[in-house]
Amino acid sequence: MNIGKHTYEDYSQIVANFHGSAAPGLMIGGFMVDLALKNLPEGEFFDAICETPSCLPDAIQLLTPCTTGNGWMTVLDFGKFAIAMYDKSSGNGIRIFLDKDKLKNWPEVNSWFLKLKPKKEQNYNLLMSQIKDAGCSILSMQKIRVNPETVSRGKSGPSTICPLCGEYYPVKHGEKCRSCSGESPYIK
Amino acid sequence: MNIGKHTYEDYSQIVANFHGSAAPGLMIGGFMVDLALKNLPEGEFFDAICETPSCLPDAIQLLTPCTTGNGWMTVLDFGKFAIAMYDKSSGNGIRIFLDKDKLKNWPEVNSWFLKLKPKKEQNYNLLMSQIKDAGCSILSMQKIRVNPETVSRGKSGPSTICPLCGEYYPVKHGEKCRSCSGESPYIK
Repeated sequence: MNIGKHTYEDYSQIVANFHGSAAPGLMIGGFMVDLALKNLPEGEFFDAICETPSCLPDAIQLLTPCTTGNGWMTVLDFGKFAIAMYDKSSGNGIRIFLDKDKLKNWPEVNSWFLKLKPKKEQNYNLLMSQIKDAGCSILSMQKIRVNPETVSRGKSGPSTICPLCGEYYPVKHGEKCRSCSGESPYIK
Repeated sequence: MNIGKHTYEDYSQIVANFHGSAAPGLMIGGFMVDLALKNLPEGEFFDAICETPSCLPDAIQLLTPCTTGNGWMTVLDFGKFAIAMYDKSSGNGIRIFLDKDKLKNWPEVNSWFLKLKPKKEQNYNLLMSQIKDAGCSILSMQKIRVNPETVSRGKSGPSTICPLCGEYYPVKHGEKCRSCSGESPYIK
């Protein structure tokens, strides 16, 4: 059983190095990305959508050319355990999602996913072995067509100097940079 | 000259493998993260803020434990070439930004950053050599304190089944999942 070009164990190690731990969601995510790639035309180039910011984006980043910084991955705050990979020009692609009916066959995974037990009461070893044994059998696939307007980051365009902080920011953001417009994450 | 624990050349290769190319912004980003880490107490753990979604998040992901999927990196759509690393409990940290006055000493970098020339007219080799030679000399640093409320992702909480698509989604999103509430990136 491989995930992308890696063995399951190698992928687990790569995940731990990048993400901090071989988190359950990322191991399932590995099967999701692998399933998507196996069902897309080989050699072509695909953009990605991740329907949750938790865990799953890292599976996409580790197994495809799509990253947060290069803009080929769009992360949506939908709280849905699903990914899509699609051809940017046509919008055509495949969506892989955790299938709630199939999930019922793997009680420890189901219980982890739905947070039915406090973390202390989870059987971690059983959870991880069920994830490995389940593989792609808890996933379903559907064809999708992406509306490019919903995932386009847009060009940043020309920059100008913020009259308040004196730093460059995109002209299109208005008369001040967003940080000086009240969105700063820093306490003054 | 090292970036994190890598030589400049090794970092360049790591960036190319992950990001698709050793993009200019990511090479500068390497110096930014390196400068931040050198000015923070060793052995402690820091969260990250990136003030632009372009390029820079990947420097953070490659050089720190913070990734999109593990939630330790917050990406802000400010279009500002700046990062911050901070202690989550106190909020105290350091912000590193590209300093517009220092940038003037490196005309090809300045011209690239401000998009003063069409890409075809850029001297790529000169740009990359100026980035390497400039190193940290185009950066400035300031102490910051992060308001935790501005960067908290929040817990997803319990899940329920969407009456329209039949998939799990966070109860806190309301009666339907966000996708079925009109935010779907897919064409029906």
